[in-house]
Amino acid sequence: MELLERAILQKGKVLPGNVLKVGAFLNNQIDVGLSVEMGKQIFSHFANCGVNKILTVESSGIGLACITAQFFNCNVVFAKKSKSSNVDGNVYTAECYSYTHNVMNNLLVPSEYLSKDDVVLVVDDFLAVGGATAACRQLIEKAGAKLAGIAIAIEKGFQGAGDKLRQEGVNLLSLAIIDSMTDGKIVFRKQ
Amino acid sequence: MELLERAILQKGKVLPGNVLKVGAFLNNQIDVGLSVEMGKQIFSHFANCGVNKILTVESSGIGLACITAQFFNCNVVFAKKSKSSNVDGNVYTAECYSYTHNVMNNLLVPSEYLSKDDVVLVVDDFLAVGGATAACRQLIEKAGAKLAGIAIAIEKGFQGAGDKLRQEGVNLLSLAIIDSMTDGKIVFRKQ
Repeated sequence: MELLERAILQKGKVLPGNVLKVGAFLNNQIDVGLSVEMGKQIFSHFANCGVNKILTVESSGIGLACITAQFFNCNVVFAKKSKSSNVDGNVYTAECYSYTHNVMNNLLVPSEYLSKDDVVLVVDDFLAVGGATAACRQLIEKAGAKLAGIAIAIEKGFQGAGDKLRQEGVNLLSLAIIDSMTDGKIVFRKQ
Repeated sequence: MELLERAILQKGKVLPGNVLKVGAFLNNQIDVGLSVEMGKQIFSHFANCGVNKILTVESSGIGLACITAQFFNCNVVFAKKSKSSNVDGNVYTAECYSYTHNVMNNLLVPSEYLSKDDVVLVVDDFLAVGGATAACRQLIEKAGAKLAGIAIAIEKGFQGAGDKLRQEGVNLLSLAIIDSMTDGKIVFRKQ
């Protein structure tokens, strides 16, 4: 998506450790106009998949998920992060390794918000090593719900999780795929 | 706002300690259709206030803030919560007491996302004792920005912070005001 790639080049910052900082437009500060355009693209890709719920992870996925949900006319559920595993039987949990913060979190979703009747689109800001995405798929599976697909703003293609999902046959849409960012130079995959 | 009051009565749960659980439609799970209607109301109230930025607090304010920002055609900035005070000079911080979790957090906003040119609308899901709101006002003041007003989904009127803000002359819009919820019976203030 050209508009997003341009924002990444103009406002993104490549930091040591393969970290791409996009706080200026995608999280921390959210360019809502850009998010609307991203939401439209996501809707156009998944419009015929029967999506009736969007699942994301706090905090950085919530903005894009809510904007996108308007086009699907559906609710958003966000998984909360917790260091402790909540053993309450009314909560689905899945372990999630955060690459950015080098910490293991548990993702929690109350079972009343995700059910076997749901056809779920996972929406998130980043796909890198795939920890959050894998945890979301676990939550969906535990709820007996169906995964419609995964929509990502920025995939770090060089970290491999996206290609693995594609090989598995998951319906994955990444609006921008970065194939390398060596020495601060960002190279996008042609889509 | 009748639609919101109805959702509170139908889907909200009053828990011990004056806690109102609205995870079914306002946070954790977000009824995006309802959020759009709330966003329209907020825009209609603040349309002529020159708002060019919306400030909220992670995580539960982000959805409503992003939906609302579409009508103002402006960006959203969310303050992050941190237990440690970040002494980096490039971050504005303000202390914030969380009534729900009985813990003191620091709210952080990178200084590059809030400036003296900004006319800021604070958007949040709840106003109770006013901790988050006061912290947001501090962040705006530290940035030298201007506060346009405060838009809240649910004000717990009986906890007093809303009336205090009105007495101060702050432009405060609360879409629903709860004057009491004794014995689980929710009584709204007529507006």
